[in-house]
Amino acid sequence: MSGYIHLYTGNGKGKTTAALGLALRAAGAGKKVFIIQFVKGMHYAEIESLKRFESEIELKQYGRDCFISHKPVPEDIVLAKQGLAVAAEKISSGNYNMIILDETCIALHFKLFSINELLDVIKMRPASMEIVITGRYAPPELIEIADLVTEMKEIKHYYQKGIVARKGIEF
Amino acid sequence: MSGYIHLYTGNGKGKTTAALGLALRAAGAGKKVFIIQFVKGMHYAEIESLKRFESEIELKQYGRDCFISHKPVPEDIVLAKQGLAVAAEKISSGNYNMIILDETCIALHFKLFSINELLDVIKMRPASMEIVITGRYAPPELIEIADLVTEMKEIKHYYQKGIVARKGIEF
Repeated sequence: MSGYIHLYTGNGKGKTTAALGLALRAAGAGKKVFIIQFVKGMHYAEIESLKRFESEIELKQYGRDCFISHKPVPEDIVLAKQGLAVAAEKISSGNYNMIILDETCIALHFKLFSINELLDVIKMRPASMEIVITGRYAPPELIEIADLVTEMKEIKHYYQKGIVARKGIEF
Repeated sequence: MSGYIHLYTGNGKGKTTAALGLALRAAGAGKKVFIIQFVKGMHYAEIESLKRFESEIELKQYGRDCFISHKPVPEDIVLAKQGLAVAAEKISSGNYNMIILDETCIALHFKLFSINELLDVIKMRPASMEIVITGRYAPPELIEIADLVTEMKEIKHYYQKGIVARKGIEF
């Protein structure tokens, strides 16, 4: 069975949650999943839930506990490069059926690492491995190599009404 | 805290998985979730995973074990109406923080129930309840009442290459 490269991009809600849903589905089929979250170091409620999948799903974060506002600080770059090194290790290990690289496109957008560095890592994957990449601003090189690309397009968002992010819903 | 109506529509992949990710996140924050899947009665791998959330997430299916091909059979209508009745019961009970109505727009598209029947059910919700609706072909009446609308737009799909659905990935 061949594995494919999934890409969830666009400005709409649902990219990370779609990746989490894929992890949940994969775990239900007995598959092993490793999730790397770039840029994010906040405590999301899903981290609690994923503790129930200790033997199927692992998650590591490589970001600060706040979003990058205008431009990255040196720590952002250090963390992202660490995350990419771990991605390389996990992807080449052959121990996983699915690797999720959450917020990768944001990391690329802020030039925390280059598209070529990322492509070199993705190339290491065994043929059967599923790779799931998320984040707005996907560059054309990623769209080109992905087998499945969904653009999450924001049609309407309650943040426009000034509602703040809520625990258990947005994080 | 007010609850909102989320709508995930469009022809791209990621609508049901985004809803599952939301359920996972909500459960991680100790919230109670009820998932109703219209049109679907197949055994998806996520059903196995959700068994680990017995006290937070319940899931019921109201569809046959195959997709509707051209037009619905009487059983499809009977099942969908049962599902809508259960939705009404669960939404009005006040026992849940989040209700997910998966593939609702497909049920509407096949006229298994009407938009007015659905709107009447949604109106029963307590103000704090989150409602998540998925399915391609969302009608304008749903977009109108939703607080958050994301269109999952297919940019590229490996089914175009003739690859069949795989256990643990697509189902």
